[in-house]
Amino acid sequence: MSRFFVEKYKNLVPYTPGEQPKERKFLKLNTNESPFPPSEKARKYASDAAERLQLYSDPECTLLHEEFAKLCGVESDCVLATNGSDEILNFAFMAFCDESSPALFPDITYGFYPVFADVNAVPYEKIPLAEDFSVEVEDYIGKKGTVFIANPNAPTGLALTVEQIERIVASNPDNVVVVDEAYVDFGTESCIPLTKKYDNLLVTQTFSKSRSMAGARLGFGIGCAALINDLKTIKYSTNPYNINSMTMAAGVGVLLDDDYTKENCRTIAENREYLKRELTSLGFTVTDSKANFVFAKSDKVSGADFYTALREKGVLVRHFTQERISEYNRITVGTREQMDTLLDATRSILEEKK
Amino acid sequence: MSRFFVEKYKNLVPYTPGEQPKERKFLKLNTNESPFPPSEKARKYASDAAERLQLYSDPECTLLHEEFAKLCGVESDCVLATNGSDEILNFAFMAFCDESSPALFPDITYGFYPVFADVNAVPYEKIPLAEDFSVEVEDYIGKKGTVFIANPNAPTGLALTVEQIERIVASNPDNVVVVDEAYVDFGTESCIPLTKKYDNLLVTQTFSKSRSMAGARLGFGIGCAALINDLKTIKYSTNPYNINSMTMAAGVGVLLDDDYTKENCRTIAENREYLKRELTSLGFTVTDSKANFVFAKSDKVSGADFYTALREKGVLVRHFTQERISEYNRITVGTREQMDTLLDATRSILEEKK
Repeated sequence: MSRFFVEKYKNLVPYTPGEQPKERKFLKLNTNESPFPPSEKARKYASDAAERLQLYSDPECTLLHEEFAKLCGVESDCVLATNGSDEILNFAFMAFCDESSPALFPDITYGFYPVFADVNAVPYEKIPLAEDFSVEVEDYIGKKGTVFIANPNAPTGLALTVEQIERIVASNPDNVVVVDEAYVDFGTESCIPLTKKYDNLLVTQTFSKSRSMAGARLGFGIGCAALINDLKTIKYSTNPYNINSMTMAAGVGVLLDDDYTKENCRTIAENREYLKRELTSLGFTVTDSKANFVFAKSDKVSGADFYTALREKGVLVRHFTQERISEYNRITVGTREQMDTLLDATRSILEEKK
Repeated sequence: MSRFFVEKYKNLVPYTPGEQPKERKFLKLNTNESPFPPSEKARKYASDAAERLQLYSDPECTLLHEEFAKLCGVESDCVLATNGSDEILNFAFMAFCDESSPALFPDITYGFYPVFADVNAVPYEKIPLAEDFSVEVEDYIGKKGTVFIANPNAPTGLALTVEQIERIVASNPDNVVVVDEAYVDFGTESCIPLTKKYDNLLVTQTFSKSRSMAGARLGFGIGCAALINDLKTIKYSTNPYNINSMTMAAGVGVLLDDDYTKENCRTIAENREYLKRELTSLGFTVTDSKANFVFAKSDKVSGADFYTALREKGVLVRHFTQERISEYNRITVGTREQMDTLLDATRSILEEKK
């Protein structure tokens, strides 16, 4: 830290992203990337855009907003593209949280929420998940504060129904509820239709998982035009050209190739159920994940040891040290072949433990 | 504005970016883009990266940092890549300015500085430029506050020497001095070497102008490792994957093609001097711009009228309404042919005014 760093950030503890090994020797099942390449149209459009990089990207993201809004069934002034969904989440913390609207989120969820709160000097309360890791809807009813719910939740993969989310939204008319749908495309219903009924609902999505575009950094917020307008005020006051022209073009491309996305999501969901079954048969406890990852613990090997043993065998998964979940690992669902490699490694680790 | 927008941002007035006409029918001389395509290596590397978009980009930007640091003659922990230089500037306002370190900058400069200050609740003072628009070095000596100086300045194009900047930096050992070198490559000496001598100097640069990569969104901060570390704390607390993999690859590509950049900069500098001479011969007053734009006023047509008349003829330039500079227009320097188109349009506007 330099002697010039402002007082308010001196104790800031940044988020730690999942490891990105430079060597690429690992089977990477640690950051919930898609095993499938980006859609052909996404790649083609991005390459075409690279030819015209000397020109600024469209700060209004007109075409991208139109295409995404069409897919969502909303007007294009009801969506906002951001540099990954981390940016839209940070914007939401900036725009809708302060001393009088503290942030509320589960104790076990996306680990970035408390960091966004801290960097924006927003007080927050962590609401414990139930014993089985499910979000207790009653705990969020009529709460005074800006609610953040990842649905499905991470790293548990458990999802609430749209009806459950609607109860939370309807019961908090004077607070914004943010539903982070990073993993929604793998088998959960989206709350986007509710944004037309409730002016206090912001849905966020990402193109990093289901759309095979983690490297492009593209996220979205979807909400009523007034909410989106507030987020635009933040964008135009921090980084008006937040989306580069290659990502913008790739985003349009993948949206025009939506069947490809849907097919990949179906495959991932199948492979997830396969992985759950196989791990269960090896004595693991797995949550009923609806995301592109499985959250699993063994009674034969600790979470930390399993992580390390897999790493030694060239398989990277994600281990979290928080006490409630330290026995678990989060394993990204990839191709059937990748899952079999993981399962083989797992079997031999369990064998060695005998 | 929604009823949920936090109190502190209710009066925030966002920055207005230069117009990006969708139709592309205009000769665009309004946002200081390069008239030259991105380097071949930049395009090739970006296209290759588009093939692997399913993987997250490297949050540490290792290769890009190494290549840029090499070019700057500094260690790679002394540079930080950001999503355009707007992001590094915003990070600097966040990291180094507060009530006890207010921001100080010229009254006529990059119009985003006061917006960055406002969004970060940073008090600021505008220090008037001299009558001839030059930065009065004495005004910045021993000032208590975080100094922001665009060098060359925008939209005047006037530059301080490295010796003048050094006097400011040396006289403010307890405050950070930020030198925004967005336009440095067109004929001014960079202050990067001073970052090895002074721990309170942050230099910012962009790949948008001299490197023909405005659409890619790539900026940099260069400073001592401790300053850069503070900025990394901000990055990892807001958006760890702030650079997408295509931009990262294009950035490496253009750095390996540095002769191409240098040649383009020489051409732009020649065309700038040509444009200055021609406008002067048409009765315009022009500043001694060292950037890739010319700042000019006529005694025959007002700044606003000249802007409008050019627009009607299909030429976009940038007009600012601040009183001190409202008679001027900022004209991006492009190819010789583009300059002749602008000059022809100017001649016919002056003719019509007779």
